[in-house]
Amino acid sequence: MRVAGAEAGLKEAIYAQLRVAQRAARALAAAGTEEKNRALVAMADAIWARRDEVLAANAQDVAAAEAAGDTPARIDRLRLTERRLEDTLAGVNQVASLPDPVGTVEAAYTRPNGLRIEKVRVPFGVIAMVYEARPNVTVDAAVLAVKTGNAAVLRGGREALCTNRALAAAMRDGLQRTGLPADAVQLIEHVDRGSVDILIQARGLVDLAIPRGGAGLIQRVVENARVPVIETGVGNCHVYVHADADLAMAERIVLNAKLQRPSVCNAIETVLVDRALSGWLPRLVGALLHHGAEVRACPESLAVLRAAGVVHERLRAATEEDFATEFLAPILALKLVDGLEDAIGHIDRYGTRHSEAIVTQNAQAAETFLKRIDAAAVYHNASTRFTDGFEFGFGAEIGISTQKLHARGPMGLAELTTYKYVVRGTGQVRG
Amino acid sequence: MRVAGAEAGLKEAIYAQLRVAQRAARALAAAGTEEKNRALVAMADAIWARRDEVLAANAQDVAAAEAAGDTPARIDRLRLTERRLEDTLAGVNQVASLPDPVGTVEAAYTRPNGLRIEKVRVPFGVIAMVYEARPNVTVDAAVLAVKTGNAAVLRGGREALCTNRALAAAMRDGLQRTGLPADAVQLIEHVDRGSVDILIQARGLVDLAIPRGGAGLIQRVVENARVPVIETGVGNCHVYVHADADLAMAERIVLNAKLQRPSVCNAIETVLVDRALSGWLPRLVGALLHHGAEVRACPESLAVLRAAGVVHERLRAATEEDFATEFLAPILALKLVDGLEDAIGHIDRYGTRHSEAIVTQNAQAAETFLKRIDAAAVYHNASTRFTDGFEFGFGAEIGISTQKLHARGPMGLAELTTYKYVVRGTGQVRG
Repeated sequence: MRVAGAEAGLKEAIYAQLRVAQRAARALAAAGTEEKNRALVAMADAIWARRDEVLAANAQDVAAAEAAGDTPARIDRLRLTERRLEDTLAGVNQVASLPDPVGTVEAAYTRPNGLRIEKVRVPFGVIAMVYEARPNVTVDAAVLAVKTGNAAVLRGGREALCTNRALAAAMRDGLQRTGLPADAVQLIEHVDRGSVDILIQARGLVDLAIPRGGAGLIQRVVENARVPVIETGVGNCHVYVHADADLAMAERIVLNAKLQRPSVCNAIETVLVDRALSGWLPRLVGALLHHGAEVRACPESLAVLRAAGVVHERLRAATEEDFATEFLAPILALKLVDGLEDAIGHIDRYGTRHSEAIVTQNAQAAETFLKRIDAAAVYHNASTRFTDGFEFGFGAEIGISTQKLHARGPMGLAELTTYKYVVRGTGQVRG
Repeated sequence: MRVAGAEAGLKEAIYAQLRVAQRAARALAAAGTEEKNRALVAMADAIWARRDEVLAANAQDVAAAEAAGDTPARIDRLRLTERRLEDTLAGVNQVASLPDPVGTVEAAYTRPNGLRIEKVRVPFGVIAMVYEARPNVTVDAAVLAVKTGNAAVLRGGREALCTNRALAAAMRDGLQRTGLPADAVQLIEHVDRGSVDILIQARGLVDLAIPRGGAGLIQRVVENARVPVIETGVGNCHVYVHADADLAMAERIVLNAKLQRPSVCNAIETVLVDRALSGWLPRLVGALLHHGAEVRACPESLAVLRAAGVVHERLRAATEEDFATEFLAPILALKLVDGLEDAIGHIDRYGTRHSEAIVTQNAQAAETFLKRIDAAAVYHNASTRFTDGFEFGFGAEIGISTQKLHARGPMGLAELTTYKYVVRGTGQVRG
């Protein structure tokens, strides 16, 4: 009984925050671009003015994570420095300078009965962000939401709670100073799992939920959500080196796509090499091993490599499961394929519809690949690492959608808006 | 144990259908517009050629529904006639003549590093439709899906199973004759609730689920889905008659919006009348009563009406709950409001973000209403009944979205597609 009471209390507390956010969202939806941009600058200024407080709060979070024995990688993601804060705030000012999608008329036409119909970009309303350690997401998400006229309800991770509190308080302060509602930025301070479920099931109060983090978090949100969700993050991506590839280019692209930043979703996990190029394998794998990668080769490619005398502790046999794994590490699976159809078949089977590339000088093979592969981004002669809001020229990124509904691939400001139809008549009724 | 075994068997059977649909979707995605249009015509022709079989199957469904004591309204929705079939098939030929959104390039630009990025409309893949009695949805959904390069997996209601079987078989036949995969149209013949859950939880196999039907069905899908869903259907819509309204126009619009077809989601449930117009209430309510409506009036308006001598068995007092109810019947709630802000406040509180109208000659009041009201369609001096794919000029409609993610309001062909980024490079890697 006491647990049920506590849960009901938590739900009521979060619903109260959501209702307040909804009211703030309505005020923000009516705000002009200049007003919102001034608010963004004020939010950044307020954080900078309180940077000592923010960094002290972060030091507290970092100390707790260290005491709890968190991994160095996680602690690094959690840690804020004055330099990192500066970079984040430079990003805020950059967002202020971007065009505002709200109010854009996407279509306008007059029907035979004289009705004038306009399709106009509008904010979603309340956007719930559910995320993990990185405190910069707290700032990025709030700023992108405010820029697009939405209220941001932020449910960050337990590890970053002190930091997020300090950041949210500063941003609310900045908002208030420009006359926009501070309540457009809400931090959910209950960091147990129950608060995530309440948030993503709040139909009528949350217009959109975006999870950002590891596969476990995203899975949890997708499984339990009752409000619309945009899934982000998982990428089992491939480079296919076609028989007619420029091999120097192929080597550059494979190394970049795997090793430039192995921990992110647009890095590749498998390279597919055309059987016609098996003579090139020792060169490619040699370069990968030289740059620190572990290579898990299919039986045929492993035999080719061994016959060519390539033996290394980081070269081993691939299992079937390797082809289905997002390593998020400098590990690359390697498979010889029997031409374009075989490559497409492998990607259809194992790919997660994120980013897929072909390297070839054959224009027809390239067009077939680009047309046939079902993924958010398909590449010809370029690294999959470009699937990113900044690299695509959006100027900002809230995440990379791996679903097909609403937004696909990198999401910038426009993807944080929806539309409505504005219909002007002169007394028309339906016959 | 036997139940669990049966469920596992059902899941396996449905997953097998989905995998087959996925393969068919890949072939369809590569098909050209002409090829798809020929398939649509062939699907309509095949239904017409087998109309005796279809109508006999429908007669079987209707007889079973009558024997089960279904309501006349439900039986009417279920019943096919040669005339209704003709209308449906005329619609198919109309869809064939519409422009194909697939392949449309929505944006194309070159980045400073030389990468050429195109944002191209592509099919979703596999679309699952979960719906109730009306057999025309079976045809509409399959045809709209094929036109947009998607496979349609159709889970119709138990009542229409014989009809749906006959229709699906004919459409598959038509597809096959034009060389497109028959498997792009799949009927799920298991009509117990378990099959709905399996379908809407098939992550990786269903790209989009669209429920169409009553509130219960939609609720069930939204609560249990693990795949992306577009919610359709529920509409608690309003007409607000502003103090500066043309009263003859207001009367026409209120009568039309409530009574032209009370059972649909874009009909209104409440009329909000500016307090300044209370002298007009007897005229408005008289007209509503005259046309067979039941009026549920707020205390203040009821007092005004009684004082003016308006007494009628279909005029009664409104409860708070009436303002939150989608009657789907010729019942209209009536409330006096204290100007524009009060009207907006009422709609914010009770509306379902579907369709909302203001009647006024005051341009400023109209613009405030159009901007401030959060709904899929907002109207000035027109009936809410125009929220419809055909009335909006889309030429087709798969449903009316009541969510903000992806599609809002009437959904036509474009809303059955997503996009992908096609990126062409010359060896670019990320620095």
